[in-house]
Amino acid sequence: MSGCQQVLIKMHASGVNPVDTYIREGMYAVLPELPYVPGKDGAGVVEALGTKVTKFKLEDRVFCSSTSRHGTLGRLATFPEAAVFPLGGNLSFEEGACLGIPYFTAYRALVQKASAKKGERLLVHGASGGVGLAAVQLGRELGLQVVGTAGTDEGISLVKETGAHDVFNHRDPKYLKKLGAEKFDIIIEMLANVNLGNDLTLMNPRGRTIVVGSRGATEINPRNLMQCESAVMGVALGTATAEEVAEVSAAVCGWHQGGWVKPKVHKVYSHDEAAQAHHDIIHNKGAQGNLVAATSPPPRQPPVFHPGSHQPSTTAATSLPPRQPPTLHPGSHQPSTTAATKPPPRQPPALHSLALLYGDDA
Amino acid sequence: MSGCQQVLIKMHASGVNPVDTYIREGMYAVLPELPYVPGKDGAGVVEALGTKVTKFKLEDRVFCSSTSRHGTLGRLATFPEAAVFPLGGNLSFEEGACLGIPYFTAYRALVQKASAKKGERLLVHGASGGVGLAAVQLGRELGLQVVGTAGTDEGISLVKETGAHDVFNHRDPKYLKKLGAEKFDIIIEMLANVNLGNDLTLMNPRGRTIVVGSRGATEINPRNLMQCESAVMGVALGTATAEEVAEVSAAVCGWHQGGWVKPKVHKVYSHDEAAQAHHDIIHNKGAQGNLVAATSPPPRQPPVFHPGSHQPSTTAATSLPPRQPPTLHPGSHQPSTTAATKPPPRQPPALHSLALLYGDDA
Repeated sequence: MSGCQQVLIKMHASGVNPVDTYIREGMYAVLPELPYVPGKDGAGVVEALGTKVTKFKLEDRVFCSSTSRHGTLGRLATFPEAAVFPLGGNLSFEEGACLGIPYFTAYRALVQKASAKKGERLLVHGASGGVGLAAVQLGRELGLQVVGTAGTDEGISLVKETGAHDVFNHRDPKYLKKLGAEKFDIIIEMLANVNLGNDLTLMNPRGRTIVVGSRGATEINPRNLMQCESAVMGVALGTATAEEVAEVSAAVCGWHQGGWVKPKVHKVYSHDEAAQAHHDIIHNKGAQGNLVAATSPPPRQPPVFHPGSHQPSTTAATSLPPRQPPTLHPGSHQPSTTAATKPPPRQPPALHSLALLYGDDA
Repeated sequence: MSGCQQVLIKMHASGVNPVDTYIREGMYAVLPELPYVPGKDGAGVVEALGTKVTKFKLEDRVFCSSTSRHGTLGRLATFPEAAVFPLGGNLSFEEGACLGIPYFTAYRALVQKASAKKGERLLVHGASGGVGLAAVQLGRELGLQVVGTAGTDEGISLVKETGAHDVFNHRDPKYLKKLGAEKFDIIIEMLANVNLGNDLTLMNPRGRTIVVGSRGATEINPRNLMQCESAVMGVALGTATAEEVAEVSAAVCGWHQGGWVKPKVHKVYSHDEAAQAHHDIIHNKGAQGNLVAATSPPPRQPPVFHPGSHQPSTTAATSLPPRQPPTLHPGSHQPSTTAATKPPPRQPPALHSLALLYGDDA
């Protein structure tokens, strides 16, 4: 895609996703070239437009999201027009930065993969995080009977407030027995390495478990899939086709402007605290919605992180050459957001971080 | 279904399936009432018709198949009209007795579950058994690129002769590396407890592994499902709806009369050797097609097996009251094939047979 189809966004907020942490650790399947600016979800205002952009005008409030792009954790970011969407006036920039990966994933899982039908019973296993809450909201909107799980009292309350018909504490030793009293047509699974074996016993005939996250291997009994002809499917936004992304984003845009899509922002970190946000999204116990890093007003250079290094280099960025604003020349390739310095050789992953390679990326 | 919709078949051959052995061992999820006659697949000639049967006339050559019915391993059997199908003159009764479970399962797996499309790459993992060979034939008919595995030289030759483009020996320590050189869109898996973890690494983006058989639990890494949005689905004929069964049987009937469906009969056992056939279908190493028990001409009473007993009671049957031919009164319920003696209390399963509970049933 040439620069003439790109949108330059003055970023106000950057959504924080587990995938950001995996990339920073150098432990993700697809690593960007160095140097790079983290952040795949964001919201802000249109600052400049490529000559062929037709959907937007200057000063439009927008959100952007792309699993193949990055750069929202900075003062400015360019995204292709197809990855930029109008942000309804009923949502703040912080909320807008939580629309992309969480809601797109929930939609892809429930609609494009599970083909959810009105009246079906849905279990959102790990419902208090960004994708989980989005799945609860979307499940209600689709007319499903929604059951959630969470691990803390705060998380349980949040999932209930978000619209679940029933919520169980997955730290209660007896929760599985309670859950299984009535089985499910669809399970959205955030931690398959812990739950998948049990999920297979919780499905109705022709049930579908959609794996959104997993941090390792697990044991299952395939007989449980045979007896009721159920299915397990993986979902990852990055594999969606352009047509599928267009469908997802059109639905989520329509819905959030209609009012019922309301991301829960649990905490807003300052720009300087981005490293802490990337830590917390993985290691905090008991999610309660989304984490967001504020990006405006910009105090200084956006942080530049090096995949493969284990300590965030938020301060090291000051030693890089001054950041040039991206130029958008028709016919040129994607603008580079920093000077084209040769990236340092990639370090082999350290063993203590290997588990993260398999972490959930949404 | 009332008797007026039933067909009385003079059986000539009874197909042997693993499920017959599991039921005899008393180790299957759904056990029939005692006493019962084994056999779910069979072929023979129409001997009598309920008053409302329209599809058949006396003396028609037919095959029958039903996962919820049984009784083909006898001189006579009644099946509902919907579970009886015309047998083309190009097939013997022995071949006709191998059409039901093997071809119906292959069709359901490839067409109704995997939605196979022309040009896709198919792996039939365990291709030399009844369902495997049917899947190879059907895969070729659907225009797929078909790769099979087998464990013996004889099995490999048979899978090649049946039409596979390529065949690997799954006892070759390096076969996985050879297999994985080019990945698959569809995998038909006969032994998921051994292969499923690897299958997940052999799939193309949006690949589908269909589990037809499994004899226990296994470890998988759900990340492998996420990265290419692939799926694992169980299949079991018994869960098909009446409409789905009608679709399956119409397709297989049309095809076998068209000529390309040609079941491979590896061995025909005499009526007295049925117990051995039930042993061999599970315990023989290196399948080479289907096993069939001849049922005509009837030398004496059909054997009656008692689920829960571990030794076949092929001779004990002589101590039962003489078997009455079933009567087909319009409006009556399904005829009982033997006198309504109260079944003995069901024995708890013996531990040494537990593994069979999880065996493949097709």
